[in-house]
Parts: sequence; structure tokens; C-alpha cells
Amino acid sequence: MSEYSDKSVPPCPFEKKHPSFLALDDSFFMAQAYNQAIDAWNAGEVPVGAVVEYGGEVIAKARNSVEEMGDPTAHAEILALSTACRAIGDWRLTGATLYVTKEPCPMCSGALVMSRITRVVYAVPDPKMGCLGGATDVNALPGSFHRVEVQAGAVMEEACRELIQTFFRIRRNGRGDSTASNGLDQ
Amino acid sequence: MSEYSDKSVPPCPFEKKHPSFLALDDSFFMAQAYNQAIDAWNAGEVPVGAVVEYGGEVIAKARNSVEEMGDPTAHAEILALSTACRAIGDWRLTGATLYVTKEPCPMCSGALVMSRITRVVYAVPDPKMGCLGGATDVNALPGSFHRVEVQAGAVMEEACRELIQTFFRIRRNGRGDSTASNGLDQ
Repeated sequence: MSEYSDKSVPPCPFEKKHPSFLALDDSFFMAQAYNQAIDAWNAGEVPVGAVVEYGGEVIAKARNSVEEMGDPTAHAEILALSTACRAIGDWRLTGATLYVTKEPCPMCSGALVMSRITRVVYAVPDPKMGCLGGATDVNALPGSFHRVEVQAGAVMEEACRELIQTFFRIRRNGRGDSTASNGLDQ
Repeated sequence: MSEYSDKSVPPCPFEKKHPSFLALDDSFFMAQAYNQAIDAWNAGEVPVGAVVEYGGEVIAKARNSVEEMGDPTAHAEILALSTACRAIGDWRLTGATLYVTKEPCPMCSGALVMSRITRVVYAVPDPKMGCLGGATDVNALPGSFHRVEVQAGAVMEEACRELIQTFFRIRRNGRGDSTASNGLDQ
């Protein structure tokens, strides 16, 4: 259990990344997602960020906004998908890639399948609630109409893990709550 | 595969339900969801509807709006959850029940867990994409922080099944596409 009822987490101690535009690779796009996660932290949200790449450009960026919007569906991935669809004028995101700092939850994993997005790259696996291979894999339903190409870990995994684990550690300590956790709970 | 590229489905041939207000039971609330599904059909959407009950009242109604909003996340359940949270001023829907005409997809099943809603009642099971017991059960992840009480089938199952299967049958015939389907694809 890690309900977010304590806003006393101090400003994010991590710096944003500024990778070169000369190599528009997975690390470049994941750095943009990481920067969104830092924005989430500084807004009092669980630090998760996501971007959508399409045609070599970032067409959507979003951070977790559950507290600010008062909406449990306002995860970074959902907001990024909606924005990306508006950007290309189609609810099918064929050809796009979503980058996110942690493995998507059940809702967001399902949303990625629904969006017909081509590829997902996530940084930190989540064995408790991740649904693209962590706790289960909603991308592997036998009757599904779409399969997303998934790349897990490898891209900025350590930086993204340190960010979110530090956030939860500070928040738990601030509440005097030492409940064991893998640090990825939302 | 049943991508929605054909808007030629005629107006919905089914009548809305008008149950008595004297018995505010599951059938009463599911009838409101059913009526939302009819609205979805008449708007050119896959006919799925949902309502959220809280304290004996309907605090949110929504229909599938993927085509109209151009957004793959605009399923009835997601829209109903967001509306319900605004209505009660909290993103945690403890004490609420969501009624939906078919078993929620991976995204919506996950959203229900995320919302901490107390109970979900769905009419038609979906063995292909349903994720509250049909194709898989994202409500049963061992590490999850919340369990939703799920009631499957039993409430208006036949009426809701006839509605959605008729929709897909007409749409397939209109395209001359006789692909076998369980009639619940979105």
C-alpha cells in the first residue's frame, strides 16, 4: 500500500538530462521521458514520465498527473497516448514508439495495446504491477487483435530506477513508514 | 481484427430500458449502462456503456467515444471513472460500483484497479480481451495493492450480448466481411 496522502517530499534532487540531438536513439527519447518524470516529482506526483516518438520526432510528452487532475487514469502513458492521437489525427498509433520510465501498469499496458502502437520501450521493470512482462503480460492474450513490440530495461534503467526508488524512500521515511516495497508502487 | 473503418451501420434497432426507480438494484443501474451503449451505437461507436453508482445514485454515465474523440483511451469505463472522480472530488472511488455492458478490456480492467473502486458488475463476458476473468484477470496480480469485487454476467447479460453482437454482425455484413468473431471485439 502506498497511497499518496503526503505532499511533504522535497524538490527532486536529480538533474534533467540533455542528450545531444545528433543521435536520436532510444536513449535520447528516454531522456525526454526521464525529464518528464522529474517534472512529475516537482509537481508532487509519483515520478513517471512518457513521450511518444513518431517519424523521428517527439509528438507527445506527459508526466503522471493523478493528484493534480484528481483522476486515477491520468498516468503519464495515458496522457501521452491521447496527446499523440490528437497530434497525428488518428487514434491508431501505427508507426509510433512510446518511451516510459517504468513498466506500464495494467491500465497503461492495455491502453498501449488498444492504441495499436508499434513499439514500447520502458526503463524499469515492475514485478508487482507491470503488465508487459512483469506481473503478467496483457500483450500476450491469445485472442488479441494487436501485439506491441516491447523493449524492457536496458535504456536508462538505472537512472530511472534511482529516481523512483529515491522518491518512495523519501516519502516512506517522511511518514515514518518503513513498509517493505520494491519502490515502484503507484 | 475489427477496425472501425465503416460508419454505415444503421440506427440502433433496440429500445432503451426504463426500469422502475422503486428498486435501485443491479438491474436498474445496468439498464442505465445499456442505454448508454445504445447512445454509443447511434453515435457510430462500438456499443458499450457504463455508469458509476455511489451512495445509491448514478454519479457518472458514459459511452464508448473512441471515434468521436479520436482517442483509443476513450472507452466508456475510462470516461465514467474520470467523471465519477470529478463528481466526488477524489480519485479514489472507494464505495462506488461501476456497471458496464461488457467485460472490461485490459486498459479498463486496469483502470478499475487503479481507481480503488469497490465493485464492478459487467454483463457480457469477453473471452478474447476481457481482463477481469475472461482472457486473463488483472485483478488477481499477487502484488496488487487493491482487489475489486467483480460480478460477472447474470445482470442483463442476454440483452447486452444481443446488442453488441447485432452491431458487429451488421457491420461485418456491410463490409462483406464474414470473419468469425465472438462479436465483442473493439
